[in-house]
Amino acid sequence: MNAEIIAVGSELLLGQIVNTNARFLSQQIAGLGIDVFFHTVVGDNPARLKASIEQAERRSEIIIFTGGLGPTKDDLTKETISRHLGKELVMDESALASIELFFKRTNRIMTENNRKQALVLEGSLVLPNDHGMAPGMVLESGDHLYMLLPGPPKEMEPMFLRYGGHALSSFACSNEKIVSRVLRYFGIGEAALETEIIDLIDAQNNPTIAPLAGDGEVTLRLTAKHVDEIKAQSMLDEVEHTINQRVGDFFYGYDNTTLFAELTKSLKERNLTITAAESLTGGLFQQEITSIPGASSVFKGGVVCYSNDVKQQVLQVKQETLEKHGAVSEQCAQELAENAARIFATDIGISFTGVAGPDDLEGKPVGTVYIGISIKGRPTHVEKLNLGGTREANRNRAVKFGCYFILKYIKDSQNAK
Amino acid sequence: MNAEIIAVGSELLLGQIVNTNARFLSQQIAGLGIDVFFHTVVGDNPARLKASIEQAERRSEIIIFTGGLGPTKDDLTKETISRHLGKELVMDESALASIELFFKRTNRIMTENNRKQALVLEGSLVLPNDHGMAPGMVLESGDHLYMLLPGPPKEMEPMFLRYGGHALSSFACSNEKIVSRVLRYFGIGEAALETEIIDLIDAQNNPTIAPLAGDGEVTLRLTAKHVDEIKAQSMLDEVEHTINQRVGDFFYGYDNTTLFAELTKSLKERNLTITAAESLTGGLFQQEITSIPGASSVFKGGVVCYSNDVKQQVLQVKQETLEKHGAVSEQCAQELAENAARIFATDIGISFTGVAGPDDLEGKPVGTVYIGISIKGRPTHVEKLNLGGTREANRNRAVKFGCYFILKYIKDSQNAK
Repeated sequence: MNAEIIAVGSELLLGQIVNTNARFLSQQIAGLGIDVFFHTVVGDNPARLKASIEQAERRSEIIIFTGGLGPTKDDLTKETISRHLGKELVMDESALASIELFFKRTNRIMTENNRKQALVLEGSLVLPNDHGMAPGMVLESGDHLYMLLPGPPKEMEPMFLRYGGHALSSFACSNEKIVSRVLRYFGIGEAALETEIIDLIDAQNNPTIAPLAGDGEVTLRLTAKHVDEIKAQSMLDEVEHTINQRVGDFFYGYDNTTLFAELTKSLKERNLTITAAESLTGGLFQQEITSIPGASSVFKGGVVCYSNDVKQQVLQVKQETLEKHGAVSEQCAQELAENAARIFATDIGISFTGVAGPDDLEGKPVGTVYIGISIKGRPTHVEKLNLGGTREANRNRAVKFGCYFILKYIKDSQNAK
Repeated sequence: MNAEIIAVGSELLLGQIVNTNARFLSQQIAGLGIDVFFHTVVGDNPARLKASIEQAERRSEIIIFTGGLGPTKDDLTKETISRHLGKELVMDESALASIELFFKRTNRIMTENNRKQALVLEGSLVLPNDHGMAPGMVLESGDHLYMLLPGPPKEMEPMFLRYGGHALSSFACSNEKIVSRVLRYFGIGEAALETEIIDLIDAQNNPTIAPLAGDGEVTLRLTAKHVDEIKAQSMLDEVEHTINQRVGDFFYGYDNTTLFAELTKSLKERNLTITAAESLTGGLFQQEITSIPGASSVFKGGVVCYSNDVKQQVLQVKQETLEKHGAVSEQCAQELAENAARIFATDIGISFTGVAGPDDLEGKPVGTVYIGISIKGRPTHVEKLNLGGTREANRNRAVKFGCYFILKYIKDSQNAK
């Protein structure tokens, strides 16, 4: 049993809006144990919409439409389906009543074309619209289930959650549940990670294992099917355990978490505070940590020390250090981290100095990065990186590495205890 | 001449990510005067991908693929197209060289499956990947143009802007030149701007005028077609002049410039230096200005003053101010801006204090923002904003407003002379 999602609307083809409905519905439908094999976006054009329907019927049992149920001339989803299936459009009295009520409540005059929204496909199950006017519809015809949903997410999402989902699962009467879990890794490339677990990927069936790379991170999406959801979860636990026995050093979290969310969490758990002295990264690290709500309990403030004057006068880096080793050096990174922690009276100080690009600096090539990490009561680490990317990529990867190193060190120090 | 966008990736069908690539490409392609009639999303499945290609060939001249060019087993876009068109996959030496260079620079070991990324369709135009490893490809075969782009937006978008667009327009345009220009506005909403020029939009034909809103900014894309490119450009000049006679106060730049690029430019022109004291925005302003190459000539450094301690001890805000008015106040914003400029010895000091959310602060509602702007030899401005958005949106809009205010003030002060 598989499904296909057809979004109707020229605004999507012009790039005026993003098709978030397809994402929402895909997540929901997967949870019902139904496979989604295709998304299609087609404009407000009867001929091309008809062609899309015919093609969907050739490859999918369930066809879900979003959009084109509005009152205006270019809304023609149900009209096109009506002609295609030879089903009349009939007035749905309860839908009409709720539309009239809507206008009464908002003291607006109801125009004739609003009545059009209360027309539904004969023989269809009508899905009430609790957040707008256009009702949804579910119609079984031939071997297919057709579901029509409104385009605006704030109408479509609650309609599907409250009414649409049940109609689908009873049609699919699939008793299999699909559960999915995302494992997030940093510090290892997609190819290298896959090489580590290639035998598992080759042997995959249920659960499936899908790698995905982006922003210098790699994720693995595990998906299991089973009638018993608890069993499906334990199948995921098992594969996760096997995978992380091999690449667990690079694992940092699940699903939609981020390195900075994990960092803030572990600092809170350990009652640790942090500050930063940022040259290379110009405030990016502090910007990222303060983007996490509640960061104020672990982060009080820090300095962007872009020029050598600021490094010396505000962060008390020795003139000798800058003259002898330069600003892009292990020594400078160490002093910046240690002095920042002292000046801001925090447990941890992190510093970033390096060459973001486009030009070399102090004879050091673009991508040279020193990250200083001073943790109270422990020797200061300075990590050197050679990042080969653009200015933006080098800055982004540098702060992520900084995050990753701190997470590693405070975990290690704990394990050491 | 029409185009179709096929996104390849099971993660899209499972709703793990949203297909923003289709939106970006649709905007760009519309700007080239090419119609997009369909978007398709298909999973990492050779049979279903092949079926999608065959169907696209029946209805579109231009077929653009995103995703499936990675190093792993489930990346199979070019492999499937290669079999479908009977074109060999051949090693592209320059792509391979840049991949090898990437690994050398980053001191990482290149695994065998990374070589796979340098394989391209024989006879195709190779599009360099300036932000990743997988190269793009453009191939003319039969009556069709096939364009293969990587999935990650950070790689795909710059590749299309720099290399892909030209290939498309030269394929699409016989002898007519299409020239396009983006006008960027800040401080006015899309609806308000559209109202000002609605008569021009209604009457548009050649040049076309396409408004688009995003990130609190509004852009107008002007596109003109003419056999003579100089004539086409002068057609754009004319429309631009008419539009900016009405809304020029909010215009700040062209094409892909940003408020921060414009700010850095005007500060350089005037030999002005700037520093920032950021509470609300946690370093975002400084990270944005330092993301511009050469920012060091106008920006030396600044402070992230997230806690009141840092506001007092590092930025010397009076205890009385914090007790009497609170940290989220006009007085605090003024002292922060003035003291930062004094401490860092710059011409301009800007400060951000406010309530980012999710929770209220000092009895002030989420979205309350004070921006202090101290310019040498002039009374300090403090601007109050009420932004009603999410934490992230409030921080982003605050720094953009800060940028916009400084640009306005230094322009005004110049005009005043």
